[in-house]
Formats: sequence, structure tokens, C-alpha cells
Amino acid sequence: MSAPSLVYGLHAVRALLSRSPGRVRRMFADARRDDSRMRTILQLAQAANIRPERVEAKALAARLGDVAHQGVMVEVDPMPPWHEDELVEALAGADRPLVLVLDGVQDPHNLGACLRTADACGALAVVVPKDRAAGMNATVRKVAAGAAETMPLVTVTNLSRALKLMKDAGQWIVGTDMSGNTLAWQADLAGAVSAVMGGEGDGLRELTRKNCDLLVRLPQVGAVESMNVSVATGMLLYEAVRQRHPA
Amino acid sequence: MSAPSLVYGLHAVRALLSRSPGRVRRMFADARRDDSRMRTILQLAQAANIRPERVEAKALAARLGDVAHQGVMVEVDPMPPWHEDELVEALAGADRPLVLVLDGVQDPHNLGACLRTADACGALAVVVPKDRAAGMNATVRKVAAGAAETMPLVTVTNLSRALKLMKDAGQWIVGTDMSGNTLAWQADLAGAVSAVMGGEGDGLRELTRKNCDLLVRLPQVGAVESMNVSVATGMLLYEAVRQRHPA
Repeated sequence: MSAPSLVYGLHAVRALLSRSPGRVRRMFADARRDDSRMRTILQLAQAANIRPERVEAKALAARLGDVAHQGVMVEVDPMPPWHEDELVEALAGADRPLVLVLDGVQDPHNLGACLRTADACGALAVVVPKDRAAGMNATVRKVAAGAAETMPLVTVTNLSRALKLMKDAGQWIVGTDMSGNTLAWQADLAGAVSAVMGGEGDGLRELTRKNCDLLVRLPQVGAVESMNVSVATGMLLYEAVRQRHPA
Repeated sequence: MSAPSLVYGLHAVRALLSRSPGRVRRMFADARRDDSRMRTILQLAQAANIRPERVEAKALAARLGDVAHQGVMVEVDPMPPWHEDELVEALAGADRPLVLVLDGVQDPHNLGACLRTADACGALAVVVPKDRAAGMNATVRKVAAGAAETMPLVTVTNLSRALKLMKDAGQWIVGTDMSGNTLAWQADLAGAVSAVMGGEGDGLRELTRKNCDLLVRLPQVGAVESMNVSVATGMLLYEAVRQRHPA
């Protein structure tokens, strides 16, 4: 049995209790906190037959360090990795799913930051190739600040095949590349979109580029020629969220 | 005399030769490269009385390591830090200036990434408080990937006073905060705007918040409650660039 991951904070714990209570092993809540948000969480726990251990706030701080735990923490089974099958199944059941594809991001800090951003922007999953790319580890989990416990990571052996599978499932494959003719805000990102970002140094690989339905570029008006991949991911997913938001 | 900084790549070197050729100490160019972009750069150098030393590509690689130097590198005097006076003067001479203000960003990686993003989005300058915040160092320069040599960094002893000075100079002070009532894309960011971001843990300080003309929030639809500050900066500056772009 692998070591549990820790998830803390009212919002994150509430999301976890709603989506996958079965992954919770133990739950700890500040004994002195009894506001409405905490009560909501305690009710969700009760409904899932989870019995929270009421502790002092300093016991949470001792375990978590200097973070905003807001009086609640759970130990959870690590997020199980998804395979292509699970991705395809999830796509079929989702309304206009947004998927993030990272083509060769090698720095675990960047992968962690991208998972966190994908979560913030409501992505369904993050797809990465198995080779020449960062995979899940402790650094990724830490930088992802909880998102690694809720955002499905799909590790694929053949990225081209995964892109084709998504295309067959109705996804519009949008690559981000300096050579793109369309600015991000001129592209239609409101539908079922898989957004593909290149790695730190080289951008999209040629084969990946060929599998894209559209190449968009991000604004670049300064002296430096490229952008940090996690920042670029944030910009593209922000644009997708903006377009999806009801006017 | 402080150690020189290195700037490389066709775009970055060209920008530097155009904007501040006086800071260039030495220039190195691949002797075998003679395309039109290189010729443009050589002409700019000649106009500024800079005599490029023609070298082999491997001499550049030996100095820079595995980066995309594109056959050109300059040694420059480090970007001199700006004071408030220089900021106010630059604001007066600029058309709808965009300024990035970081209220207590402590991680040098985040400061470096923000400088890079500010550069990519055409910001005039980045303003940081002197206390409880990361300042310029080698890590910042490395992560900024050249932007530290072109983007003015204004270190101020009193951030409130700096915000008031900017307001007096005609800037609209827009803070980014989870509590903001306006979504980023609903705010008018096309004019003279100073965008204020909070630090990694605590967001905007109370006094900073009070000095804002408007508080906007970024989309947050996932399980994790906050976003990496450099990613959030990328989203807000992207929105400003989008609004400034001619339709």
C-alpha cells in the first residue's frame, strides 16, 4: 500500500469529499472551528461514513508546516494514474471537456504548476508522454499544492496515438506555437478542446504539430523570445475559461 | 565595475541594440551566419559604433551552454535599477503604460518568471517593495532568461507611496485578489494600468488593497484554492495585452 497524500484547506477537502470520498483514509478537523463552511464539510464526511478526528490546530500545523490549512486535513490514497481508456471514457461523459497536453515538459516544477493551473481552470485531465518528460513525484505534488490529488494525470506511451484517440472522441486539438497564425483570443476555445503545449526548450515536436487541428500563438511583444511553459499554459487555459464563461 | 550580464539570441540582442546600445561592452557573432536577421543586427551594431567579434558557434556554446543563442551574444552592463523618479518620468513619456507591481513575492523563481512575462507582455517596468520580497540576484536573472537585462526593476521602500505616485501619474491601480467582484475580462485593462499581484501565501496586504482603484479576480473553478503567482501574473497580463490588441 503506497503512502497516503495529504490534502488540506476547506475548498480542496470539500471537493475531494464530494468527488471521491472513497479515497479518504483519515480526516482531521480543528476541534474549535464550527462555522458554516466547516459544518458543510463535516456533513459531507458523515454522509460518506468518514469519522473526522477532532484535533487542535497546532496538530495540523505540526504535520503540514506553515500553510493555510483552514482547520481541515485528510489523508488520501494517491490519485490513481489514468490510462487512455479512462480518458476516452471520461471524454464521452463530459460536456465540452478541456484537456491539457504537455509535449515533453521535463521540469517537475513546471509539471506541478501546470497541474495546479489545469485544476484552477477546470480541465478534465492532463496528458503527458511517458518518455522524455517529467512524471509524478514528490516535487510535482508539492508544487501542485493539492492538485496532484484531484487532477487525473494520463501517461501515454505514444502521444500521437493519444492525440488521434482524442480527435476521434470529438476533441479539437489546439497546439500552442510561436509559428501559429492565429492569436489565442482569435481561436474558438469554447468547445471540446485539447490544448497542447511544447516542452521548455524546443516547443512542439514536428509529429505533434502535424496532429494539431490548429496552431495558436500567445502574445510576444518584448525582448525575450519565449515564455515559461507553465505561464504560457496559464494564459491559454485562461483564454479557454474566458470563452466558456457565460456573458 | 560589476560583472557583465550576457544577452543572447537574435530577438533579445536586437532589442538591446535598439533600446540601449550604450550598455553593450562586447559583442560576439557567429562568423558563418549571414542571413538577413543577422545583417540587421550587424547594421544596428555598426550604427552604434559597436564592433562585433566574429567567432565560431562553438565558442558561443562554450560560454552559454545548451541554449538557443542563434549565433549572437553580447556582454552588457547590468540593467541599472530604477528609482521612483525614473518610473514617474517613464510613465509621463509612455502611451497607456502597463506596469506590474508585486506585493511581497519572496521566491526568486517567481520574480524571474514575472520579469520574463512582463517583458513578453510589453510592460514598462516591474515594481517591488524593498522589504520582505525577493530582489535581483543570479537565480532571478537565470529564470528571467534575458528579461532581467531589459525590463526595469523598481525597488521601492514604501509601496503605498509608490502606488499613490503612479495614481497621480494617471495609472489605474488594479489589484488581483480572490475577493475581487470583477472578473479580469470584465475590467477595462486597455488604458494606463498598474497591475498589482500579491505574494505567494497571503495575497495582497490590507494597505495595498486599499490603494487599489479596482480589485479583479481570476477564474478559479477547480479544487485548489490559489494559483501560482507567476501563472496568475501571466493570466492578468495576457488579458491586458488581449484588450490592447487592435481588433
